[in-house]
Amino acid sequence: MNFLSDTTAPAHPVLIEAIARANEGFAPSYGADPLSAQVTQRLRDIFETDLAVVLTVSGTAANALALSVLCPCDAQVLCHDEAHIHRDERGAPEFFTGGAKLLPLQGEHGKIDLQALDSALAQWPADFVHAPPPAVLSLSQLNEAGCAYSLDELHVLTSRARERGLFVHMDGARFASALVSLGCTPAEMSWKAGVDALCLGATKTGALGAEAVILFPSVMDRLPALQARLKRSGHMAPKARFMAAQMDAWLKGDLWLTLARQANAAAARLAERLARADGAELAHPADGNEVFVRLTPALSQRLRDAGAQFYAWPDGSARFVTSWCTTSEEIDAVLKAARG
Amino acid sequence: MNFLSDTTAPAHPVLIEAIARANEGFAPSYGADPLSAQVTQRLRDIFETDLAVVLTVSGTAANALALSVLCPCDAQVLCHDEAHIHRDERGAPEFFTGGAKLLPLQGEHGKIDLQALDSALAQWPADFVHAPPPAVLSLSQLNEAGCAYSLDELHVLTSRARERGLFVHMDGARFASALVSLGCTPAEMSWKAGVDALCLGATKTGALGAEAVILFPSVMDRLPALQARLKRSGHMAPKARFMAAQMDAWLKGDLWLTLARQANAAAARLAERLARADGAELAHPADGNEVFVRLTPALSQRLRDAGAQFYAWPDGSARFVTSWCTTSEEIDAVLKAARG
Amino acid sequence: MNFLSDTTAPAHPVLIEAIARANEGFAPSYGADPLSAQVTQRLRDIFETDLAVVLTVSGTAANALALSVLCPCDAQVLCHDEAHIHRDERGAPEFFTGGAKLLPLQGEHGKIDLQALDSALAQWPADFVHAPPPAVLSLSQLNEAGCAYSLDELHVLTSRARERGLFVHMDGARFASALVSLGCTPAEMSWKAGVDALCLGATKTGALGAEAVILFPSVMDRLPALQARLKRSGHMAPKARFMAAQMDAWLKGDLWLTLARQANAAAARLAERLARADGAELAHPADGNEVFVRLTPALSQRLRDAGAQFYAWPDGSARFVTSWCTTSEEIDAVLKAARG
Amino acid sequence: MNFLSDTTAPAHPVLIEAIARANEGFAPSYGADPLSAQVTQRLRDIFETDLAVVLTVSGTAANALALSVLCPCDAQVLCHDEAHIHRDERGAPEFFTGGAKLLPLQGEHGKIDLQALDSALAQWPADFVHAPPPAVLSLSQLNEAGCAYSLDELHVLTSRARERGLFVHMDGARFASALVSLGCTPAEMSWKAGVDALCLGATKTGALGAEAVILFPSVMDRLPALQARLKRSGHMAPKARFMAAQMDAWLKGDLWLTLARQANAAAARLAERLARADGAELAHPADGNEVFVRLTPALSQRLRDAGAQFYAWPDGSARFVTSWCTTSEEIDAVLKAARG
Repeated sequence: MNFLSDTTAPAHPVLIEAIARANEGFAPSYGADPLSAQVTQRLRDIFETDLAVVLTVSGTAANALALSVLCPCDAQVLCHDEAHIHRDERGAPEFFTGGAKLLPLQGEHGKIDLQALDSALAQWPADFVHAPPPAVLSLSQLNEAGCAYSLDELHVLTSRARERGLFVHMDGARFASALVSLGCTPAEMSWKAGVDALCLGATKTGALGAEAVILFPSVMDRLPALQARLKRSGHMAPKARFMAAQMDAWLKGDLWLTLARQANAAAARLAERLARADGAELAHPADGNEVFVRLTPALSQRLRDAGAQFYAWPDGSARFVTSWCTTSEEIDAVLKAARG
Repeated sequence: MNFLSDTTAPAHPVLIEAIARANEGFAPSYGADPLSAQVTQRLRDIFETDLAVVLTVSGTAANALALSVLCPCDAQVLCHDEAHIHRDERGAPEFFTGGAKLLPLQGEHGKIDLQALDSALAQWPADFVHAPPPAVLSLSQLNEAGCAYSLDELHVLTSRARERGLFVHMDGARFASALVSLGCTPAEMSWKAGVDALCLGATKTGALGAEAVILFPSVMDRLPALQARLKRSGHMAPKARFMAAQMDAWLKGDLWLTLARQANAAAARLAERLARADGAELAHPADGNEVFVRLTPALSQRLRDAGAQFYAWPDGSARFVTSWCTTSEEIDAVLKAARG
Repeated sequence: MNFLSDTTAPAHPVLIEAIARANEGFAPSYGADPLSAQVTQRLRDIFETDLAVVLTVSGTAANALALSVLCPCDAQVLCHDEAHIHRDERGAPEFFTGGAKLLPLQGEHGKIDLQALDSALAQWPADFVHAPPPAVLSLSQLNEAGCAYSLDELHVLTSRARERGLFVHMDGARFASALVSLGCTPAEMSWKAGVDALCLGATKTGALGAEAVILFPSVMDRLPALQARLKRSGHMAPKARFMAAQMDAWLKGDLWLTLARQANAAAARLAERLARADGAELAHPADGNEVFVRLTPALSQRLRDAGAQFYAWPDGSARFVTSWCTTSEEIDAVLKAARG
Repeated sequence: MNFLSDTTAPAHPVLIEAIARANEGFAPSYGADPLSAQVTQRLRDIFETDLAVVLTVSGTAANALALSVLCPCDAQVLCHDEAHIHRDERGAPEFFTGGAKLLPLQGEHGKIDLQALDSALAQWPADFVHAPPPAVLSLSQLNEAGCAYSLDELHVLTSRARERGLFVHMDGARFASALVSLGCTPAEMSWKAGVDALCLGATKTGALGAEAVILFPSVMDRLPALQARLKRSGHMAPKARFMAAQMDAWLKGDLWLTLARQANAAAARLAERLARADGAELAHPADGNEVFVRLTPALSQRLRDAGAQFYAWPDGSARFVTSWCTTSEEIDAVLKAARG
């Protein structure tokens, strides 16, 4: 009954097998191997567009690298106040960009409020030499409150950003969860929705450690800069084939979507039933594989006593994260404990 | 007959198995897992001292992280002109330190010349506000010319550095190769020889991607800074157990030494025999798993025609790198082609 | 009738004379001259404590340098959302610190609200490796709304900060204005109130360009780091005597306080009388030499037609800044126009 | 008899008067004042081309700012091993560029040797992702050995650089001295000789503290970036008119050339006569206002006993720097002491 994080879950066995299979003979290093090329091709097919890709071992690295080729050192990134890049990456974006600012914006359920965005754009003009101009809008999909922006919501925000000349970055550490939640195509939830660069995370959805930084055509000219920074930050893996093998197996045959659906289904069931319990109230809609729920101290204790592991979130709620391997038995056990 | 680099070689199967075994159930993320703790303990036993460790996916990351906690942004690192940190890491040390300088020193066979070190220390005083003071001496063992410093050579250089208050960093991307070459203990070739921080590389000696930054007691107080920078640079892997699993299996039962001996033996045989061929001359002693040899154009072509892959090195020599899986047949084939 | 900024005002003639006087013969460069030493001594006398000083040409430089020796690159500075360091220095603190964060806090009248501070300290723990810990609290005195923190208000905020191990930085670009407003001693408004490092600005109160970064005893050990960064950022002036001459003349015989009193008196009169006009309402108490007033469009136009120059502030108010050379006639002319 | 540095000399009185004159009434801040515009116009006339300018308080700032808009953070600057940017600016270029490398090249008399340049360009290819590509060639004119590159020498070096796509930066801290030494036009010694950005120093030739960063048409598109970095580094002076006033007066009526000629003449006389003394030998041609001379210990002591102040240079020579106010009497006194 471990609901601490999807990063505590094991990897899917198919990815382990893919790594073993990739370990045959010699292969060019630093990403010049055939598996890396195959990953790029798979992503082009899946996203229905030309694109450029590099792989990293963590979402923090992916986000920081993407932002570093979109945001000059003397500009700023607009993001939600709860954004992972702002709260949980130890200043990685500031480090990789050479000191750009992250401007935290407010909004319910982890979604940037349009008025907050408009206000920030009004307060920080594009051509005032004394202040860092906004250069990037960063959106998390799935976001840090476990919610997915609808396509309409995405369009409204990215349009505002693009009108002002900002690039749009999407932190997709749980992109797959959001995607199956919305039921749209990968293209619709990314470049067709105004996203220039996407960090597509596999680690939280079944990989050992593999995240893709994807540059869509609008910013593909930045690939050489991205590769230089990949190297400079120590993220160009010598034996890159093993990261590519994971990503390749994860995407193949829609395994990524299957795993995301499993995690989402567990979360949906947990959210729906737990919300009915006395002393429990959902803090946010559970669009993906995260459930934020406000619990009375008694209920919280009862769940813990029953063996459920979850984090007390800073906003006072309890966070339950499901994963591709969360079982019905685990969910049942939580619900049983909740009923008392 | 791939002698391009030990990073093009596959990983040792035992490490793949270790990864599969580590994939059981849930485990704390970000390095708090039991395997990571076990790696630290193994390294303490092997190095016969207390120490602190973090793991990274590349040697570039390991070196840059180690240097970033030893060298202030306004100081400098003294290294060999051929050092990997200077030539082949796209300025990663400069990036991670926040703009420290790398001062390249000369010396035969990739070894820093004592006079060059003394001259640099004389030219760059410790307390001159207008110039970055030397703060770190970085030594590669095995070095970039495939040579190993003797223990005496290490002691002379590190003593000079320590007298002036510099820390000593060792780039041990091929530490295992140098170690079995010298036939001394890991302690003797590191902290007992004046090394404060060691980057111990497993990737080039049989791992998929695992490098350890080891802080010896003289600098263990920098562990919190190192961990913060590990996170900040995106190198704190969410599912760190898989990197730990590799390192653990690599160290267990002296597998690391066995693999290094295999690679070294192949290189030694290649060097010895190739040196006897007409048109071939060793550029440096082949102390580890790298052979630098000057070839006539005709001989070089003959080897390539026979299927040998190797790099034309910037100094005009040809570089052959052997690995744990280089076979006698491959060496024989090269030597046969060399004899014409 | 120029109320745009105190940086558009001329310097006081006594400072010009001091520069001319300092231009006699040779003098050691880079701050080793006798006038620089004399400035340090004067500041020690005025602040009734030992302290260390460096001089810079701008307040942006002073703030960024001070913060860079107090805040590690992977930590953060807590400041008011309207703080000059956050809004008007093009990310200089981020640049000088190597990528630290500035966390904007809310509060009426440009003063950090205690609850906002407490909330931030609670949300950003000191020992969470994934997030930049708060390292510095920065307070502007006079602040960006033209208000001065009372000594009690300062104590409450700095105590909270110091309990958590934060350093306290004071942006004193208009320190003199705040000081004569409170009527306390320089010591009481700085180190006795919990301030570790003070940026004492002379430029806005009559200098040509001279700002002092003052390290009080609690952080004097950082002087070598400060000097190194002064040099590294190009702010160690070769002919430092000319900056020292300004600061020396400005402090001598309490000229600085006299000039601040003149500017404050003009502002006070403008604020008091303007507030009585129809269509005008003070936005903040006018504690120093800045008056923020909400004007009806008609009144605003009338003032501009009469020749008054002032900025439309982002919050909708009009900002009038007086200086040491604002005349009664100018104030009268504004007030006359205001009466219609 | 102070020959320590031209930065220990006073400013020319005309510049003091210009500052006093500039202190009339209000003026726009941050460089938008009429005097700043006038400086730009003067420089356009003098350099016979369109150009963009910003002013700074130190040569270190000017060089670092210029380099920061020419050299990406992951690239490198080629410069002489003795270059001020490499030896005497505490890593300012590394700081401002965000961690670019400075690659020191050898060459007699402070001049970069063409073969050294060619070798560096060959060793560091433009498109190798693992190494920082050369992006800028930096030349000091007058250089750190007191020598001036001839126009031919400049052309040869800058051509090589430009063929490879490098920008050319000129550190002209003593540009005026080199210019009157060569007897050519400012245009011929800068943009017509392949220079993209020039740091034109007035401080060492009679100013209080004023250095111009000049962008020639080939890089004028970088002016917005330069201004942003000027602000971000704290070098955008609030009361910029006082720096502009100096530069304006310095350029007006060719005062700058007159002052440089005075300094050069003193140096030439000192060099020529001192070279004839027993125990003295010129280390480098004295093309400008610096004389490097090897002295026997006895002669050195005799000069010091007579009151001459000069630096013992790291290469074993003695450095004498003359300035616009060095008198014939001072030179005579040195020569008299030299004769014994």
